[in-house]
This record gives sequence, structure tokens and C-alpha cells, in this order.
Amino acid sequence: MNNKKDFFVDYSCLTMAEGLLSANAHNTHVVYDVFFREIPDNGGFVIMSGLECLIEELKRISFSNETLEELKENGFSQALIDYLSNFKFSCDVYAVPEGTPVFPNEPIVKICGPVIEAQIIETLVLNIINHQTLVATKANRVVRAAQGKRVIEMGARRAHGFDSAILGARAAYIGGVSATTLYNATKQFKIPSASPMSHSWVQLFDDELEAFKIYLEEHGEDGMLLVDTYDTLDSGVKNAVEAFNSVLVPKGLRPAGIIIDSGDMTYLSKRARRILDEAGFPDCDIYASNSLDEILIKDMINQGAKIDGFIVGEKLITSESSPVLDGVYKLCETEKNGERIPAIMVSNNVNKITTPCSKRVWRLFDMESGKAIADVLTLSDESIDNEKTYSLFDPDFTWKRKTVDNFVARELLVTIFKDGGCVYTSPSLEEIRSYCIEQVSTLWDEVTRFENPHKYYVDFSGKLWGIKQSLIEKNSKF
Amino acid sequence: MNNKKDFFVDYSCLTMAEGLLSANAHNTHVVYDVFFREIPDNGGFVIMSGLECLIEELKRISFSNETLEELKENGFSQALIDYLSNFKFSCDVYAVPEGTPVFPNEPIVKICGPVIEAQIIETLVLNIINHQTLVATKANRVVRAAQGKRVIEMGARRAHGFDSAILGARAAYIGGVSATTLYNATKQFKIPSASPMSHSWVQLFDDELEAFKIYLEEHGEDGMLLVDTYDTLDSGVKNAVEAFNSVLVPKGLRPAGIIIDSGDMTYLSKRARRILDEAGFPDCDIYASNSLDEILIKDMINQGAKIDGFIVGEKLITSESSPVLDGVYKLCETEKNGERIPAIMVSNNVNKITTPCSKRVWRLFDMESGKAIADVLTLSDESIDNEKTYSLFDPDFTWKRKTVDNFVARELLVTIFKDGGCVYTSPSLEEIRSYCIEQVSTLWDEVTRFENPHKYYVDFSGKLWGIKQSLIEKNSKF
Repeated sequence: MNNKKDFFVDYSCLTMAEGLLSANAHNTHVVYDVFFREIPDNGGFVIMSGLECLIEELKRISFSNETLEELKENGFSQALIDYLSNFKFSCDVYAVPEGTPVFPNEPIVKICGPVIEAQIIETLVLNIINHQTLVATKANRVVRAAQGKRVIEMGARRAHGFDSAILGARAAYIGGVSATTLYNATKQFKIPSASPMSHSWVQLFDDELEAFKIYLEEHGEDGMLLVDTYDTLDSGVKNAVEAFNSVLVPKGLRPAGIIIDSGDMTYLSKRARRILDEAGFPDCDIYASNSLDEILIKDMINQGAKIDGFIVGEKLITSESSPVLDGVYKLCETEKNGERIPAIMVSNNVNKITTPCSKRVWRLFDMESGKAIADVLTLSDESIDNEKTYSLFDPDFTWKRKTVDNFVARELLVTIFKDGGCVYTSPSLEEIRSYCIEQVSTLWDEVTRFENPHKYYVDFSGKLWGIKQSLIEKNSKF
Repeated sequence: MNNKKDFFVDYSCLTMAEGLLSANAHNTHVVYDVFFREIPDNGGFVIMSGLECLIEELKRISFSNETLEELKENGFSQALIDYLSNFKFSCDVYAVPEGTPVFPNEPIVKICGPVIEAQIIETLVLNIINHQTLVATKANRVVRAAQGKRVIEMGARRAHGFDSAILGARAAYIGGVSATTLYNATKQFKIPSASPMSHSWVQLFDDELEAFKIYLEEHGEDGMLLVDTYDTLDSGVKNAVEAFNSVLVPKGLRPAGIIIDSGDMTYLSKRARRILDEAGFPDCDIYASNSLDEILIKDMINQGAKIDGFIVGEKLITSESSPVLDGVYKLCETEKNGERIPAIMVSNNVNKITTPCSKRVWRLFDMESGKAIADVLTLSDESIDNEKTYSLFDPDFTWKRKTVDNFVARELLVTIFKDGGCVYTSPSLEEIRSYCIEQVSTLWDEVTRFENPHKYYVDFSGKLWGIKQSLIEKNSKF
């Protein structure tokens, strides 16, 4: 819907770029971290998503003549116009691969390069990562609640615009859903499609039975019948059985399923299951829809609902119960006279204090169980030796210490762009989805549960901790 | 980010189109209503938005060869491919103009035409109207909470994709915000821009004072200083005063303002106000940001915060506390043997029962006060005579009756497309924004308040009520 030629950017980033040029500070070499502070839905982790889209956008940064003309008319300096007209991306970008579980206050994207470039891409980076990571995280919750039953994503009608729906469907697939109803998402990303019947179809015909029969004539074993247009049990399920018997059975075909979209679905599904079983269709799946989320799904399963699949709409695609990932883009290192200087922001809100320095992020896996023990942030010239023991400590409560051995440390940030050129090949969407399932399985159940999940450790190296403390003391006036 | 050549559509709409062609029912003349059931945030009304974008999309419906090829590969019928390759939109579309307050269960868009066309555009219509109407509604709440103080929209970094931010900024402007920080929205829609300073700017320089001075040298009277990078009162505001005195005052310039982005902003704003006043800058505005919404803003104003403007981010652009408008697209009239037949959906959930027939929507304004009294849905061949008294009654509690006179009845649905051609000229964005303010002022305070707003009347004509009742009785098996 918007003019795709335009680069996505906040005014303040352009204003800042102009100021940097004027102060001749634009080429200062800096490092920015992207990290979030809170996990949506008070969950235990977040699923990284959006990297492929970010790569695509960073590859094509440019400013059209029309944009430059327009900036000039709005009073931006000739220096900015000249700079943008010759813009060439030269940053290094590191990121955590899509599908990885990540945690608060650790860098999930890191940008190193001239400050003017890093500023210009800020809005873009945050928009993409915040949105897609949010949806992947919510989808993963819904899929875990469904305990192996199929989840179909159907949020396009209430998503926040076309991108929200299309890219959201991709993120949801990474998070583990089985299919999407959005044609554009299936086409663009080869996500498996699903196509539930609509109430309109039933309403268009003289009666429900006729509507079901015509639908099954057309769609055979793929046709799922929506049974709640008039009355689920007394009309819908009975007519479905009659239609199966008269259209499918003579052809030797079996029914795909029925969909219940209203009423008490736990109760209705049990009754419908009995009717279907008694009619000789124990293989006919029952799907549920109607503003579902992970809490309702978990509850329905706990109550013994006879549901084989869930069609999940607006509550997934907008992450309705927690629709914001609060990712930020913060300076952590700058440069003076060629020397790298750690940067910090010391806020009146303690939880807004940032962690300085260009960092690496390590995940320590226990060799025996394969489980993730903790993440550790170190300076970029530090590394963690798998052969030795490692002493973890909590950066806030430093008396909380733990020594680990028999672990493998894996770096989470991988190189995506080097000197402005992309050096990363995205795995396929299927690979990302499988990787996500596998990585979530490395988390302890205590971290993955919905209620009061255990806070996963994100610890600091001693050196990093020391630098942060000294900068807080130097800069704060508490 | 997505391929804009593709028409935005759910798989199930294509499947249904295929089925309609196969059943030779595709040209059945139907009427669909778009309406919502719940008001976000339990508010008293919703602000219609998205029509201009909808018009643009409906004007350009077409299916690329690539899409047709792809559908064919996915097993869609040749009849569907042929139909889509010659697709020509021929529907009549009626809609409530943007900026109008609207209420649950009344049609805000009405589509009349061949069922196959009406089905194909369903996903598109709902996505656009649900998203943009949601954001305009939230923005209007925030703006009303701010009681005439400036509200700046700054949500791009946490919006759900680019469209969500750009089209959301437009909707927010309709809802009453003063400016946006998103360059793309200012460019595309000529919305006034705002450009708050970032923490990075302060961090990039040796100290805060130097950062402020350089910023003011560059931006003069436009430069708003962000004062919470280290310590709001002891460092930020003091350095701001010093920078004003050393950079602006000698040039005879006055400061634009300061921004507080953390801490207890009511307290900090009062202290900052005193410091600025005593330093001779009573004209320096104080802006607040930091995850604001209408509840926080109302509370800050009630507590006497000295804030002149609010910068509102993710909680507005995602309508964070209520991120879904539940608009639906329901068949209300179909055709048999050339005769129009009212259509209904009778669900196990009573609130999902639809209202049949092609309808008109009337708003009755009291001649004396100018206030909106009620909306009335009538059949499309009924009209309401301003010269007579009119007897209102509640469609659910029919004993609730009220006779009104001395009113003007205005039709809300206006003709947008006739036989597939656009016959409507959108007002300018400024006109829509002014119209919105004016129309909200026709609502009683009881309808506009945040807590337990009065339920505005959306009543039926006697004829419409009678048809609905008889169809419920005919179709339900309760």
C-alpha cells in the first residue's frame, strides 16, 4: 500500500544524520545493540524472527531522486542530500539466526560502522525485528499449547495491514504453525495452505445440506465443513454426516473434517465426536476456531475437548494479549581519536540502564542433557573455553554464583553483513522452523511453562561487568 | 516488503470462488455488510478509517500472469484461472466516510454485486478497515485524554510492519494527533512531522552539555533536547538551560522544548518547569514520552504534571491495550430466481447472529443541541422523514421505546463505487481530521467518557426487526 521505493525511516534519524554531518562526526565508528527488555505475555523466552526480511531491506537501501527532492524542499541541508544520494551501506551486521530462543537484555542484532549509517537504518531494523519476533513468539506459545495438534494461522482479516499479515504468517510458521490461510503468504514463502469453509457458502444455498453436498462434490477429501451456521449439533453435524454418506462414501472417499466456530467448543466437540464416530466417521477430524489463543487451547485440551486442530486468527497474528515487543537500538560503543570507547545510558529508570561495549553472546549447553544452562555476554575480544570450568554470576545479584563444566559454548551472533556486503545465506523456511523446534527443546520445562516461568540466566563476564559498574558510577548522580 | 503486484486474498476466498464457478452460482447478486461487534478498550464509539486506502486497492484489482500460473500449479480449476484473468470489478460499494464515529452492529461498508467478486475482496476489505479504524479510534482516545495538548505519534519502531506504521500514522492523524515522527508518512500523506532527539546523540559526545550545544547550533528554535540520558534534573535540565543561554539567547532565539523519557514524569515535569521558569525560560515546552497511553496521560494531567505535549509510541500505533477491531464481512441478502432473499446467520453464540437485508444507516441529530440521538437501520427502500416524529426501539429489549421529533436524519453510508467505478472523491486528510473532531463533538459526554460509557442506540426500523425475528425463528433450533 505504501510506496516501496521509499526507505523506511523516522524523521529524527534524518535530523540526526544531518546534525552528524554538520558536526563532522558522521564517520565516527560505533556499535549499536538491538535488545528487548520484557518478554511478551510474561513468557520465558522469545523466538528470533525477521532476519531474512531485514537482509533484503538492507541490501536495497537507496534514496530516490523524488525523496531527495522532497527532503530538500523540507529544508534538509545540501550536505545530507549529497550524502544520501551517494549512500553506500558499509556496516558490519551480526544477528542471532531466526528461530533461536532469545532472552531479555542480550544483543540479538549488533551493528558496527559509521554512526550515520547505523542511525539511518534504526527505524527499519527495529520495525522488522520487533514485529516478526513478536509473532513468532506468540505462535510458538499457541503451538506448544496445542500439544502436537495442528494449528492453522488465519489472521489476515484483523492483522495490522498487509505486511503484518504476510510477514506475520511467515513468523508464525517459524514459530511452529502448520499452515496459513493467506494466499499471499503461501505464494511468497511456500508455506502450506489451508482453506476453511465460510459461513457465506452455507448461506448462499437453499439449505445447509445442499451447501455441504455441493462443497464436497467440488472439494472431495479436502473439503472441511463449517457446521455452526444454524445449529452445530442439531443441524450442522447431522447434515455433515448425511453429506459425507451421500457424496464421499459412494466414491470411496473419506471426510477431511468439520469446523466448529461458536458455542462451547469443548462440549460441542465431545458431542460431535460421538455423532461422527457412531455414524462411521471416526477418522473425520474436528477443528475449532473462534478467537482462540494459547490459554483457551490449553484449557480446552485440559477439559478433554475432542479437537484435532485449531484455527487461530487475530489473537495470534496481533499477539493480542501482548502486542508489543519492546526492542530498542542502543549505542554501546563509540570512538574518540581512533580509540574505542564504551558507551552507556544511565536512566532514572534502573531497568533502562544499558550495557556498554561491543559484545559477544554465548550460550552454554550442558554436554550430558543437551540443555541450555545460561547465556553469557562477554567483551568482543573474550571467548569461552569449553575445556575449562566457567564461573557464572548474576549481573544484578552478584552473590548468585555457579560454576559449570562439561559444557559446550556456542556463539549466538553470526556475521550477516561484512563491510556492507551480505555474507550470510538464510536457511530455508523449513529449516528455520525445524531449528526452532529443536532449540526450544534445549530449554528446561521451567523456562518454557506459561505461568511464572523460571528466569533464564543471562550473565556477564567479569570484565564486562566491571566496565559497566565503573561507567554507572562515573555517570550517575543517584 | 511483500510483492505489491499480488492481490491480497485468503485462500478460502479463492476456494470459494472456484466452488461458485463450478456450481454456476458465481453471478448470484448478493449484499455483504462489514460491521464490528465490540468497541476496543470498552469505549463508547469507533472512528471509521481506511476508506481512501480501500478505494485505491479496489481500483487496481488484477491478477498477474505469475499469480495465475501459480494458482494453476496449485490445482485451482481452469475456470477460476479464466475468470481471474478477465476479472473486472463491477460491485456497488457504500461506506461511512472516514472520521465518522460509528457503533457496533451497524454496516460501515456495504458491498452489492456478484457473489464471486464480493468474496474475492473480503480479506482486503477487512484487513484495511479493521486496522486503520482501530488506530484512528485509539488515537482519538489519546488525543481526548491530552485535553488539547499536542500529541506526537512515534510508533514506527514497534508497529507491526511498514504498512502498520505508515497507514497507522495516517489513521492516527485522522484521530487527532498533531504530527508523526515517521518520514514515510509525512511524505506520503503530508502529515506534519516531528523529530525528537535521541539518546544516541547525547552519548556520542564527550558530555551532555556539549551534545546539547551542538544540537542547538544546528537546529536552533526547532531543537528539542532529550534530558534523561544521565540524570533528568541534576544533569539534563541544568545542561539544557546552560545550552539555551550559551547558544540560543545570544542569537535572540527561544528554546523549542525539552523531552523527559523516563522516571516519574509528573514529579520530574513539575521540578523541571520550576528550573526552566527560574532560568528565564517559561516558554520552553516540556514533552513527555516513555510508553504513554490515554490512561497514563489522563492521570498525569489529573496530578498536575507540567507537560505541554506527549510523544506516544507503541501503545497508540498497535492500540496495545486492545489491539483488534473485530470487523466481520457477512452476507445479508442473496438472490433466488431474480428475487432478493434476506440472509441470516443464526449462531450458537447469540451475539454472532447477523442482521439480514440490504440496509441503510441513518443518524438522527437533535435540531436544538446538534447532538446525535441514535442511529437507525432501515431496509434499503425505507427512509426517515425529518418532518415527522420517529419512534425508536431497542432491537434486543423492544419495550425500551422513545419517540423523537425536531431531528435531522442523515444517511451514513455514501456511494463509493457504482458498477465497479469509483464515484467518490475523498476529502483531504486535513478535512477528514477536522470532520472527525466536529463529529465526535456531536456525541454526548456520556458516550465519549472512558469508564463505562453509555451505550449509544443503534435501533432498527419495525420492518427490519420483523424480518430478522421471523428468520431467527425459521432457522434456529434453540
